[in-house]
Amino acid sequence: MATGHTDPQRRERILTAALDLIAEEGIQHVSHRRIAARAGVPLGSTTYYFSGMDALLREAFQHFTDHIVAVFDTHLSAPSDPDQARQAVADLVHALSEGGGRDLVLTQELYTLAARRPAYRELTHEWMRRSRIHLEKHFDPDTARQLDALIEGLTLHRALSREPHDRALTLEAIARITTTGKRHP
Amino acid sequence: MATGHTDPQRRERILTAALDLIAEEGIQHVSHRRIAARAGVPLGSTTYYFSGMDALLREAFQHFTDHIVAVFDTHLSAPSDPDQARQAVADLVHALSEGGGRDLVLTQELYTLAARRPAYRELTHEWMRRSRIHLEKHFDPDTARQLDALIEGLTLHRALSREPHDRALTLEAIARITTTGKRHP
Repeated sequence: MATGHTDPQRRERILTAALDLIAEEGIQHVSHRRIAARAGVPLGSTTYYFSGMDALLREAFQHFTDHIVAVFDTHLSAPSDPDQARQAVADLVHALSEGGGRDLVLTQELYTLAARRPAYRELTHEWMRRSRIHLEKHFDPDTARQLDALIEGLTLHRALSREPHDRALTLEAIARITTTGKRHP
Repeated sequence: MATGHTDPQRRERILTAALDLIAEEGIQHVSHRRIAARAGVPLGSTTYYFSGMDALLREAFQHFTDHIVAVFDTHLSAPSDPDQARQAVADLVHALSEGGGRDLVLTQELYTLAARRPAYRELTHEWMRRSRIHLEKHFDPDTARQLDALIEGLTLHRALSREPHDRALTLEAIARITTTGKRHP
């Protein structure tokens, strides 16, 4: 414990502190100094664990996307038929759009980064791929891709509206996008 | 022309300069000084026309959302039946997601602001309401709302993926979400 460099929680604390700062104040306000202070670690720790701010930010956002993928996993592991899966997706949209703001802010900060810097699209690309794996437990790959985009739009529009649409509309949209049969069989 | 304060283009140039700076460098890098320099107007102009930076930013983003609503209008005015409207919506998604990045970056910057500061949700709320008016030329209000969310998600996912989905998938998703009839009539 002389240096604390082997403390397995220190790396994790640095990532959480970085995400907290980004969520509360915006990515422009993060610095090694502020992250170290927030995490309660020596300033040198951030450069010991991460090769630079870019590497630290990428790993922090990776950490964040792991968290959202876990929310997908939690919602989509239990359903045993497509109707249950549709209800679970509606729950997911409403959980994500009412989460108190932190997840929404971090998602938008990551998208802003990815919109400006293609290197970050590796992260958003991989995030979408992993989300679809959970949707593909219940739906075919093309449907999962369409549904994933719909989840994104419904969540964002609920979060950014003064009068968010209700669960019935969410569920109707999900039912329509997952209805793959012919209309007149 | 002694002061130039009556130049009707000066206000517009300030807003365009603000949006250019936000798109290129991020909202954290805008200042009265930099906006004035970019617009080629005296520093005092930005405070003459706008009560403060917040008012300037809001009007700049209002200007931006007007532009995107006009893109909706352009695509959705011509179609004369629902099938043409679906093709037009697919064109819209692909135009917005391949626009070279500026629109995508500005959209994300606005969403990040709105996610963090509810006052900006007045802008995003109004933007969604106006988009839906154009979709309601061809679809019922509930369908227009679902379709608007789908457009958002498909556009964002195409823009942030390394392997964007093709037009056939976009069109299939649009067809499904706008299919309101019963499956087994």
